[in-house]
Amino acid sequence: MLGTGGGGDPYLGTLAALQSLKGFGPPKVIELDELDDEAVVALPFLVGSPVPFIEKFPLGQELIDAYHALDRFLAGRLTAVMAAEIGGANSVVPLVVGSRLGIPIVDADCMGRAYPEVQLVTLTLHGISASPFALADEHGNQVVLDTVDNFWAERVARAAVVEFGAICAGMAYSVTGRQAKVAAIPGSLSYAERTGRALREATASKRDPVAAVLAETKGHLLFRGKIVDVQRRTQKGWALGEAVFSGMDEHAGHELVVRFQNENLVAVLDGDIVASVPDLIAILDADTGQAITTERLRYGHRAVVLGIPCAPAWRTEAGLALGGPRHFGYDIDFVPVEVRFGAVPAGR
Amino acid sequence: MLGTGGGGDPYLGTLAALQSLKGFGPPKVIELDELDDEAVVALPFLVGSPVPFIEKFPLGQELIDAYHALDRFLAGRLTAVMAAEIGGANSVVPLVVGSRLGIPIVDADCMGRAYPEVQLVTLTLHGISASPFALADEHGNQVVLDTVDNFWAERVARAAVVEFGAICAGMAYSVTGRQAKVAAIPGSLSYAERTGRALREATASKRDPVAAVLAETKGHLLFRGKIVDVQRRTQKGWALGEAVFSGMDEHAGHELVVRFQNENLVAVLDGDIVASVPDLIAILDADTGQAITTERLRYGHRAVVLGIPCAPAWRTEAGLALGGPRHFGYDIDFVPVEVRFGAVPAGR
Repeated sequence: MLGTGGGGDPYLGTLAALQSLKGFGPPKVIELDELDDEAVVALPFLVGSPVPFIEKFPLGQELIDAYHALDRFLAGRLTAVMAAEIGGANSVVPLVVGSRLGIPIVDADCMGRAYPEVQLVTLTLHGISASPFALADEHGNQVVLDTVDNFWAERVARAAVVEFGAICAGMAYSVTGRQAKVAAIPGSLSYAERTGRALREATASKRDPVAAVLAETKGHLLFRGKIVDVQRRTQKGWALGEAVFSGMDEHAGHELVVRFQNENLVAVLDGDIVASVPDLIAILDADTGQAITTERLRYGHRAVVLGIPCAPAWRTEAGLALGGPRHFGYDIDFVPVEVRFGAVPAGR
Repeated sequence: MLGTGGGGDPYLGTLAALQSLKGFGPPKVIELDELDDEAVVALPFLVGSPVPFIEKFPLGQELIDAYHALDRFLAGRLTAVMAAEIGGANSVVPLVVGSRLGIPIVDADCMGRAYPEVQLVTLTLHGISASPFALADEHGNQVVLDTVDNFWAERVARAAVVEFGAICAGMAYSVTGRQAKVAAIPGSLSYAERTGRALREATASKRDPVAAVLAETKGHLLFRGKIVDVQRRTQKGWALGEAVFSGMDEHAGHELVVRFQNENLVAVLDGDIVASVPDLIAILDADTGQAITTERLRYGHRAVVLGIPCAPAWRTEAGLALGGPRHFGYDIDFVPVEVRFGAVPAGR
């Protein structure tokens, strides 16, 4: 849900987390302010397209290889890991690494959602470099990038991941504890846990799961409908495409199109963009409230489309310039979802 | 000439060598057997296509960056450099690095010619890995690859070099002195120097420069003609194409086609392949004997096409499997140039 359709199938992330729990015991999660100022933290994540992730699962030795490749470059100074994005499998990856290596995992992330490019993290807004950037695949291949900026890191990393079969393990954005406290988004693991619990408890007590999610996330219902068309293509390692929803119930007679690049980017109602990045656009099963990732969108699915306010950092001028609609080719001014759909104040 | 059309324009290599001589004094060249058994030697080279090399010249700080990136990975153990290929600008690159850093250059190379892929070195025949493999561009970006084999190194390096504008500096194949003595081709710089001197002295004394080259290299004249068509395209960072020669003098009425992938691969006389990799196919100006690189082939050029025996390592079963005609998609058995064109024994 917080992955806005991307970040890698969370079901697969769940399997990896369960296996990790079974083999290595519970991970040690710490709050951002427990982190020593001089500690060095880095972000482990899956790089590439969520589509091959269904077939290939780079959550084993390649993750550990990427950690060690980066740590070697940093002369052994890594002490903790933190999530790059709080959506899809990537929100679980730090738990896997932390458990397997017995190191702390910070309750924070650097997107407050999922994004399809590695420079689209709040760390970039604070001038923090992705490099050194380690990538590792399931064959044992490793690459360490040391680039002049994050756009070069994204460019060269994407070229490497295409060779590695469009998905691999990555490890980058090493920051000190002092930097993380300023630049990361605090409490993300807890936020994901609360949202999941709200959904689970509503389902168990036969209350409306969608309403529970909306309450927890301060989100808005954009549309209720049936998927009548899905187009997708994998290009440069991304899953690009769109899904068309034909309205049901209160939206009968209307049409909504959600366009995506790994993550859902914009929601277009009867021809007008009504929600866009950086706000979160989540597609949930209309009955169960379970999130549907972009690669699992299918004809006939009855779904609701939600708009959820993004982390405040993305609504600043610098945040919108980095990860707003124009970055993805939509020449529109961003309108916060609560401005268009309700009176709930921004942020959470 | 020894670059068989590839390896990067030797004129540009000459400029770099002269500038290096001027700024840093003569390089210290040592013979292979002077190398300490425990010394660590690596190969500096240009990676990519010779076409952009005309416009962009990665022989400055990026070469030094690549050296230091590799040396950092090797914890500071590098002591000398050696040529990857003895043709085109790449034969000069070690002289530039050695001069600028004040380290010895070994009189040897690892192809005895030029080849368009990084795993096509005699070191591969001895199981020596290209990794760790450093790449650096003119912006200051650096990448260190640590791959499971040389085919993966080629694959990932090529993806990176395309992002770096199809040409960049590389540093790879770190070997001990002991390994180099077995696996490298000795005396290559001297061989290039002798061939160049033979050409220069013939020109100065108004003797036939082509005959002087043939005598020095034990080569054979395959064809004399005028270029009537050149087709080329840059694809995946390679310069691919073919040149068509219409026969002159003793070859009047015949046609020769030379196909290339950075380097000249096969010579096709009236429809039959008469020379192929791993033997060297060199195209020289018919009057001056100066080599013409693939990217400088032009309509109307009057040229001779020579076949020159390759280093013996490439004529072994393993050598032909690695760098023979089938590797480049030609399903033919290799016939040594001297078997088809003369009675001169193989090797040199």
